[in-house]
Amino acid sequence: MSSFTRLVRFLAKDGRTYYGDAILPSGVTDIGKATQARVIRGSPWSQHTLTDQVADVRLLLAPLAREDVATVRCLGLNYEQHAHESGMPIPKYPVLFYKPVTSVAGPFDDIPIAPVAQEGEGLDYECELVAVIGKEAREVSEAQALDYVAGYAVGNDVSHRDWQLKRGGGQWGLGKGFDGWAPFGPGIVSSKIIKDPQSLKIMTKVNGETVQESNTRDMIFGVAKTIAILSQGTTLLPGDLIFTGTPQGVGMGRKPQLWLKDGDVVEVSLEGVGSCINRVKFTKPRSRL
Amino acid sequence: MSSFTRLVRFLAKDGRTYYGDAILPSGVTDIGKATQARVIRGSPWSQHTLTDQVADVRLLLAPLAREDVATVRCLGLNYEQHAHESGMPIPKYPVLFYKPVTSVAGPFDDIPIAPVAQEGEGLDYECELVAVIGKEAREVSEAQALDYVAGYAVGNDVSHRDWQLKRGGGQWGLGKGFDGWAPFGPGIVSSKIIKDPQSLKIMTKVNGETVQESNTRDMIFGVAKTIAILSQGTTLLPGDLIFTGTPQGVGMGRKPQLWLKDGDVVEVSLEGVGSCINRVKFTKPRSRL
Repeated sequence: MSSFTRLVRFLAKDGRTYYGDAILPSGVTDIGKATQARVIRGSPWSQHTLTDQVADVRLLLAPLAREDVATVRCLGLNYEQHAHESGMPIPKYPVLFYKPVTSVAGPFDDIPIAPVAQEGEGLDYECELVAVIGKEAREVSEAQALDYVAGYAVGNDVSHRDWQLKRGGGQWGLGKGFDGWAPFGPGIVSSKIIKDPQSLKIMTKVNGETVQESNTRDMIFGVAKTIAILSQGTTLLPGDLIFTGTPQGVGMGRKPQLWLKDGDVVEVSLEGVGSCINRVKFTKPRSRL
Repeated sequence: MSSFTRLVRFLAKDGRTYYGDAILPSGVTDIGKATQARVIRGSPWSQHTLTDQVADVRLLLAPLAREDVATVRCLGLNYEQHAHESGMPIPKYPVLFYKPVTSVAGPFDDIPIAPVAQEGEGLDYECELVAVIGKEAREVSEAQALDYVAGYAVGNDVSHRDWQLKRGGGQWGLGKGFDGWAPFGPGIVSSKIIKDPQSLKIMTKVNGETVQESNTRDMIFGVAKTIAILSQGTTLLPGDLIFTGTPQGVGMGRKPQLWLKDGDVVEVSLEGVGSCINRVKFTKPRSRL
């Protein structure tokens, strides 16, 4: 397991990309404010060294390189009031779906909206606590589960409701898996620092206006219980991300509904971690279907 | 793109694991019958060399190592008669879901059934053509799509119907993603050899009795169309697997229904590729939830 306290990956002022341990000014907890980090050599999931070299941060990237992400799992309907606003019953088991590794993006990246996702209606945001698995977990108990967590980040489970709910034959794969639709970060705060992931304020702002505001204590399946259940019959790997569901206030649940538009800025925040601030960017076609 | 004709990964008689190009006796097309292969050095998706070294095969493994698999996509309800037997409408778009990389297993591995998957009812088989992406594909046309396929294998989308359909809140994630529930192989036949993936016999036997028998021409979304649609807004990566759906005859659709039991042997076969032969193996608990 890793030795970091606040893992970041960043483009440095020297033009190179590093893993690092963020250096934060006293009293600051938002990793997005880090301007320096101690350089980590090697991959977080294998041999690595926290060096004494301090590098200047130009831009924070996704806290894990794509090759260091194994599988991206997400939970649906995992906050009670969000289940209500979606008109769905409280689930008895986690509602589990996946995103491809290509959906992973950085805390300040644009969210690309390809032509296919500009069709129809329902471009939406979902702020979520992201648990990052740090060592292999298989059939672990709820009591032990948090020992397998490297740390926590905040992420946006970007969703297109028409593709997700109307065109996918009931499966959510088509409407949530586009490139860059799982921005997360701004870094990964070690589970040595966040000992209780179930008491953190979580929120979303769209163009500066608060649209989601809740606390992770309202999760139906907390992180420990989620890991205990998902690890039954399934090995969770270092670098697995678990997006643990979103609270009430998504655009689909509002009256009137609020859909994201080209140029909108979405900020998702988690207490003790920081914010991801991503601009919605409609892209042009590359070729025709 | 790779230079292989029939990519295999195998434990050799010298005790080492290699990638290789299977050597088949004249007239044999089932890669599972390969007893020798020319050794390939390097990963299929990066620099590699087809050497002149011939190694003796002791056991064929999953044709790709876990680190060479990016994302596992699967289609549901992609054969017309299977949609009928499931009582579902013919989909207008692919019904897309995912499996974690830990579900990938070899053509002769046991299928482990953990205690959680021994609960309830509905352990089922699904023979499927597996398309393996060989180079990055993004917004490709149907006409170009097969150029991005490295080759084809056969796989079994092992499923637990209670977890899939009754306990997952409508999402199929819980019932299809257990460790080892996506055996595939016995090797990957290059798209230079299989030029038309839509004219191949596909079948399943359980304990020697034929239970599924169809042809990939009955697919609703063929491989080219699937790749064209899935690559819209989404980059497909080398090492992405696409399980392209199963024909009629699954255990759930039979009268009476046929569920797999401990010790059953399931054989899935694809013309021109060969067979995966996997034994169902109930496992003991490691720890309690």
